[in-house]
Amino acid sequence: MKKFAVVLSGCGVFDGAEIHEATLSLLAIAQAGAQYELFAPDILQYHVVNHFSGELMSETRNVLVESARIARGKIRPLSAFDASAFDAILFPGGFGVAKNLSDLAFKGADCIVNVEVENAIKAMLLAKKPIGALCIAPAVVARVIKGVQVTIGTDKGTAAAIHAMGGKHVITNHGEVVEDTVHKVFTTPCYMLDATIIDIYNGANNVVQLMMESLK
Amino acid sequence: MKKFAVVLSGCGVFDGAEIHEATLSLLAIAQAGAQYELFAPDILQYHVVNHFSGELMSETRNVLVESARIARGKIRPLSAFDASAFDAILFPGGFGVAKNLSDLAFKGADCIVNVEVENAIKAMLLAKKPIGALCIAPAVVARVIKGVQVTIGTDKGTAAAIHAMGGKHVITNHGEVVEDTVHKVFTTPCYMLDATIIDIYNGANNVVQLMMESLK
Repeated sequence: MKKFAVVLSGCGVFDGAEIHEATLSLLAIAQAGAQYELFAPDILQYHVVNHFSGELMSETRNVLVESARIARGKIRPLSAFDASAFDAILFPGGFGVAKNLSDLAFKGADCIVNVEVENAIKAMLLAKKPIGALCIAPAVVARVIKGVQVTIGTDKGTAAAIHAMGGKHVITNHGEVVEDTVHKVFTTPCYMLDATIIDIYNGANNVVQLMMESLK
Repeated sequence: MKKFAVVLSGCGVFDGAEIHEATLSLLAIAQAGAQYELFAPDILQYHVVNHFSGELMSETRNVLVESARIARGKIRPLSAFDASAFDAILFPGGFGVAKNLSDLAFKGADCIVNVEVENAIKAMLLAKKPIGALCIAPAVVARVIKGVQVTIGTDKGTAAAIHAMGGKHVITNHGEVVEDTVHKVFTTPCYMLDATIIDIYNGANNVVQLMMESLK
């Protein structure tokens, strides 16, 4: 049975992992007949956003602790990730990827990626194992893997940042996947487009299916 | 196009709405060709549980504000719910249903249901519109609708509480739905059983499909 590591960045689109993308990735992995295990870095969130009002909250929350909400408690610190124990790694999106797993939201092409995230991506690349990324997460993969070809949909600012980081951006529509066969990187736009929950399911499912194909 | 109201109880299985049940309910509704709108009561959570350690946290969080994480900000206070604007209502599970939408987790058969939740259920019952409930939520429906037939799976304690509240409990396995045709109430166990995410999708989907059938 193939085994995916899924890396979360909190719990909620505006300051953490996008919940639909995370949940539907897990569903797609299970439906593909594979297993998954969840990881998140044990760090403070960049900030906490009130998802009802959109305003900042004067709180601190931990990325691992909040990610555990999506994981129903079954999650490990990303520091414990061992690439040899997994066949594939998948990054759902959400602003948490650009605020907690990196500072992409603030620094753009000059962003710094969390060292555990960077190590996990590099270890899977070195092992020639597939790397999947949804929504904004492909931009972080592009920061770590120079020259990778990815998609985040149609957003011009993010596409320009990907080019500035040495990557190649391909425009896509709902559910479409860009496959970089050299680096085994699979990306799809999800909520980077104005998408429905069905689009998110299709995007996550298409990425997982192609990752499974690459493992045959 | 049929329209579902989906009522959330926070964001996270141990103190709020179960995230997979909520997300997969939304997917099932969309896949059935229906629309949804999200609601939650604007009240404080009973408590906040660290989902990584299982310990209580010395914080307060608001049910509406945290539910907005699952809703991506598109959610209204349950006080604004108008039964005439919806064809159906659905309650995903999670401990939030038993801690925030009611005090079922602490009082069992003697529980008090949040008045907005009670009013919403009663208004839909009066309008002969279908009511769906997943996981532990059927027990709260049983507190409001005397004599209703529901399932929460196989848990003997909760089944006994349902009987003590005047309801009838039917034992079910993964994905099975109990349909009370008199009250138009549709229930399935989801994570009240030791379930996989595929079981949750099947359960939510089966409930939504039967609710849609009842609307023909």
